[in-house]
Amino acid sequence: MNYIKNLRECSPLIHNITNYVTVNDVANVLLAIGASPIMSDAPEEAEEMTSISSGLNINIGTLNNQSVETMHLSGKKASSLNLPIVLDPVGAGATSYRTKTARSLINELNLKVIKGNISEIKALFKGTSTTNGVDASNADLNDDLSMTIDFIKKASKENSLIIALTGKEDIISDGDKTYIIKNGSSHMKNVTGTGCMVSAMITAFVAANKDHPLEATAAAVMSMGIAGEIALEKLKEGEGNLTYRKNILDALSLISDKDLLERGKYEIK
Amino acid sequence: MNYIKNLRECSPLIHNITNYVTVNDVANVLLAIGASPIMSDAPEEAEEMTSISSGLNINIGTLNNQSVETMHLSGKKASSLNLPIVLDPVGAGATSYRTKTARSLINELNLKVIKGNISEIKALFKGTSTTNGVDASNADLNDDLSMTIDFIKKASKENSLIIALTGKEDIISDGDKTYIIKNGSSHMKNVTGTGCMVSAMITAFVAANKDHPLEATAAAVMSMGIAGEIALEKLKEGEGNLTYRKNILDALSLISDKDLLERGKYEIK
Amino acid sequence: MNYIKNLRECSPLIHNITNYVTVNDVANVLLAIGASPIMSDAPEEAEEMTSISSGLNINIGTLNNQSVETMHLSGKKASSLNLPIVLDPVGAGATSYRTKTARSLINELNLKVIKGNISEIKALFKGTSTTNGVDASNADLNDDLSMTIDFIKKASKENSLIIALTGKEDIISDGDKTYIIKNGSSHMKNVTGTGCMVSAMITAFVAANKDHPLEATAAAVMSMGIAGEIALEKLKEGEGNLTYRKNILDALSLISDKDLLERGKYEIK
Repeated sequence: MNYIKNLRECSPLIHNITNYVTVNDVANVLLAIGASPIMSDAPEEAEEMTSISSGLNINIGTLNNQSVETMHLSGKKASSLNLPIVLDPVGAGATSYRTKTARSLINELNLKVIKGNISEIKALFKGTSTTNGVDASNADLNDDLSMTIDFIKKASKENSLIIALTGKEDIISDGDKTYIIKNGSSHMKNVTGTGCMVSAMITAFVAANKDHPLEATAAAVMSMGIAGEIALEKLKEGEGNLTYRKNILDALSLISDKDLLERGKYEIK
Repeated sequence: MNYIKNLRECSPLIHNITNYVTVNDVANVLLAIGASPIMSDAPEEAEEMTSISSGLNINIGTLNNQSVETMHLSGKKASSLNLPIVLDPVGAGATSYRTKTARSLINELNLKVIKGNISEIKALFKGTSTTNGVDASNADLNDDLSMTIDFIKKASKENSLIIALTGKEDIISDGDKTYIIKNGSSHMKNVTGTGCMVSAMITAFVAANKDHPLEATAAAVMSMGIAGEIALEKLKEGEGNLTYRKNILDALSLISDKDLLERGKYEIK
Repeated sequence: MNYIKNLRECSPLIHNITNYVTVNDVANVLLAIGASPIMSDAPEEAEEMTSISSGLNINIGTLNNQSVETMHLSGKKASSLNLPIVLDPVGAGATSYRTKTARSLINELNLKVIKGNISEIKALFKGTSTTNGVDASNADLNDDLSMTIDFIKKASKENSLIIALTGKEDIISDGDKTYIIKNGSSHMKNVTGTGCMVSAMITAFVAANKDHPLEATAAAVMSMGIAGEIALEKLKEGEGNLTYRKNILDALSLISDKDLLERGKYEIK
């Protein structure tokens, strides 16, 4: 397991077409784990920017007609160059514009990974879900674990991509092999950005570990979970959410493969 | 006084059409006080997004023709659904585009609360003010307090909405009853975002305490003031603005109705 | 040397047309050093917003057709009012859209300062460079120092503006006099935003010290370098990138001319 070491050594340039809410966290987390971020959503430079990059991170958190155009232009260029593309379908299921945009990206691009919560993933691959904005709904969160694993496996297989479902347990599957990860902390949902940061991290981990995309995806998700645990351990009496957020990013800037080995909690199915 | 308890229990989804400068703080402050944030300014999903929300927070800090269109579309939907709408007319009076946009939103929507500094509120309801960009001008800050209270009362009454004027003293009125709040710290103007955060908080407080919109607005403003005081008490020698900002958000994630009771400094007129 | 004192006393309003990645840091750094920030990229208010400001900071980090239009409108207004304009040509050389936009701003506006890394400056004034997205490429970073100084001097002279080249050594020249600054820390490249913050700081320093634009630019760059050093000295075992970022902004909110005198490391050529 040298996923983080590889990443820090090759320092891939990641092109991010992402939302303006958590974009600063996304840039900082890519620097923290050793990648090099670039943000651009202008159609005028979409293909050229993707061409100099090693991976493309598409996040529809605050999509608009211009950024959606850029997602398609950059996505097609990345597909033709065989660069890994990661999609974070933020809020799919919450509005038809988001669901339609995410579906169209899935259909037209050669995606490597989709990362989402249970409501987003169900909206895209089951056609039914309830919604709570950009968060998973309570109804969906009560789904049975083993049924969810089966669903993720099947959807991965049928769509020839890796699905990374994040939640209390993270389920990461390419259809053949499935990781169930139990790291993380319930405190992570108290700050914005952990989901968007994971998607960016997955892009960088996969770009730096091309021959092992499933393991690289699992390592990225596990890294965030472990950072969430370390951040909580460091939180002192009287400190709140923003200190916790800072602790997460601090932890990710210091994390190594050794931490994954020692703290990783997961099963393979 | 259970305003914060109610908020943390019902965790309302708040739709924010806001600026890209402080949007991350706005998302984090909504999570900190127990609400659920969603940010979207695309006309394509304006009405659908508002429909699944419990309150609408409109902030013109970095307005553009697309976001202004969305403000109107979402605002009309929220008005028709009787959802609370809060307007933060950032920089009204500084440019005619901002003044015109804010006035048009006031005229066409059924606003519940307008939150602004003295220069913004005068520009909108007196037609005259001086400006210092997005901050209140020194000339306006020297206005006489009791005259300002009368002006706010009258403007609230005439426009059938709550005005929350923030400054050294915060004046919050629905035309009949007026809160004058004296919490807060002059350090708060050294960091960006406290004003935008207050507007988002007001939206959440009112959405969770629908029968008491004036008191909920006062509680939101008072919470921020108290957080500003706690943040200063925790600031150590050698720590500066960014630590202070972190302390404010930390304090808001830990605040309770008990803090309002014990630390609130206000008069009712 | 009263550059910082002057700035804190006159508190110039700075109009920023900047990217959505680091915009919050830019607003906070302007407040930290005593200026007053306003962000606006709407063509509808471009000229009016610039008219009430004391300086214009243009940053092409996430340019789009609307913000580029605003850059030209505001830039022409600032030129006509003789306000200092600073350009940060983020990613010039990485895509032709960025290079072309930066060149057009250089040709059509009366710029006071251009701040960039070696790859960006070479792309604009030599027509050749390699690129690593928004960071300088390793090839360019290995350029010989004295040759780079000569190049910066010549380009400044020919284009009648100040060039502030940031890197391991910062080179700041108006063509006649050149500052070589050796403050700073290699840790600064581990967090996003230090470059964008420097450009905003230069705008404020020059706006507040109009008769000494070269010295004011050098003082701004040196202030950031010294803050980077102080931030590292305060970083404790187990703290990472985000704490370091916080420390930088904390240090800038506390910095004074005395710090420049005592800690400044530079030569004049």
